[in-house]
Amino acid sequence: MEKLYIIKIGGNIIDNPVELDSFLRQFSAIDGYKILIHGGGKLTTEIAEKAGIKQTLIDGRRITDAETLKIAVMVYAGWINKSITAKLQALNCNAIGLSGADANMITAEKCKHPSIDFGFVGDILPDGIRSKSIIQLLESDFILVFCAVTHNGKGQLLNTNADTMASALAVALSNDFEVSLVFCFEKNGVLADANDDSSLIPELSVSDYEALKQKGIVTKGMIPKLDNAFNARKLNVQNVMIGNASQLAQIISKQKDAATYILN
Amino acid sequence: MEKLYIIKIGGNIIDNPVELDSFLRQFSAIDGYKILIHGGGKLTTEIAEKAGIKQTLIDGRRITDAETLKIAVMVYAGWINKSITAKLQALNCNAIGLSGADANMITAEKCKHPSIDFGFVGDILPDGIRSKSIIQLLESDFILVFCAVTHNGKGQLLNTNADTMASALAVALSNDFEVSLVFCFEKNGVLADANDDSSLIPELSVSDYEALKQKGIVTKGMIPKLDNAFNARKLNVQNVMIGNASQLAQIISKQKDAATYILN
Repeated sequence: MEKLYIIKIGGNIIDNPVELDSFLRQFSAIDGYKILIHGGGKLTTEIAEKAGIKQTLIDGRRITDAETLKIAVMVYAGWINKSITAKLQALNCNAIGLSGADANMITAEKCKHPSIDFGFVGDILPDGIRSKSIIQLLESDFILVFCAVTHNGKGQLLNTNADTMASALAVALSNDFEVSLVFCFEKNGVLADANDDSSLIPELSVSDYEALKQKGIVTKGMIPKLDNAFNARKLNVQNVMIGNASQLAQIISKQKDAATYILN
Repeated sequence: MEKLYIIKIGGNIIDNPVELDSFLRQFSAIDGYKILIHGGGKLTTEIAEKAGIKQTLIDGRRITDAETLKIAVMVYAGWINKSITAKLQALNCNAIGLSGADANMITAEKCKHPSIDFGFVGDILPDGIRSKSIIQLLESDFILVFCAVTHNGKGQLLNTNADTMASALAVALSNDFEVSLVFCFEKNGVLADANDDSSLIPELSVSDYEALKQKGIVTKGMIPKLDNAFNARKLNVQNVMIGNASQLAQIISKQKDAATYILN
């Protein structure tokens, strides 16, 4: 099978132009098929707060009323997605910026939560990834850049978690490619001590993960990310790593201690 | 040659949800290859003015400083482009929303004006349309939806006139397709009396156009639109029409008096 790299970058990288440029340089140098998924950064919150729209995040998910959705789509699918696309083009990387609505590639439904109304937040449907269109674009030598916006197929755009999107894409495409799914953020991986960057845990099994959660070493923000990572690995994604965006080249070349590798 | 429809809609249609829905229904019903190019509507000006960024338009071109560019890209490539894409998908029209930066499809350079600094406004380069990528996507059965944002190939996004973009796309693709270029707006076409919708001029030659300009019948806002239309016709675009967005089906089926047809 051909290799496919699915790389997710978080908001902290997007908010730092120097780190973003370094990351995009490393991303553009990867040989072969690749997909980038990006989160949002601080801009959505900034614009919403300037407009007097109070923002609430619960477990990393933004409560998304109609006005917040508009701002989120503007920021994610507009400014961030097209800025990244233009920067990648300048690096001779033939990027095409997309949301899940484009070519109907990712469909979702409004998040159903027993007690919280998250508004226009979308959960990707079990059959929500249209692999055929994605493969068609990859085989046309396009590099796909997804923002974390999906739709319900009935005209409604939905704000969707970028980690979940990366995981769902990796799972759907692991039948057709040998997928490496890399979650990039501002830390070196899963750390035994959150304040010590040198305490990297190079490999993490489900039982290790459970133990770290019980000991309170894995913090709140890391739990949804790691849940997505373990879920992808469980559903046969061939390689799943969590590491520092600045070390992407080392992670891709599987250098020792370059990231945390997620085990079965 | 296969037929290709290139349809441009203006801001007044985008700002009216009922008219936009009716237009999109008619657009989605067109058989065969098609491209939609959309302008911006009032949202960019609204957001910029709320943020205290004064907006200046000269001959229909927006003076675009860095902050205005950010807002324009958010609105055009983000909210409007993805809303239209999601609506078309709901109509079973396999739309994919794009800017000129995506797949490097449209490159431009910063507008050079002898006396006015337009900022981040882009003029499409003579060889700025990458037909090969556009044809590849059309032949993959995608419907392309372009917002009026381009890039310079060096990482800089640029705000570009949507009429000019439609005209440039039509010219570049008229070698490979029999192109019908339709400029849709809120009037029935070119009118002999701007206040009388029944005074449609069904056919317009260059000499008629010159005469209408001299008599002051063709108004300021119409001149750049008609210049783009005549330029496309002169450069061998097979069919060029200007008409009412609500009459798209009649225009496409070449009904009598459905629009103004641009003659050589």
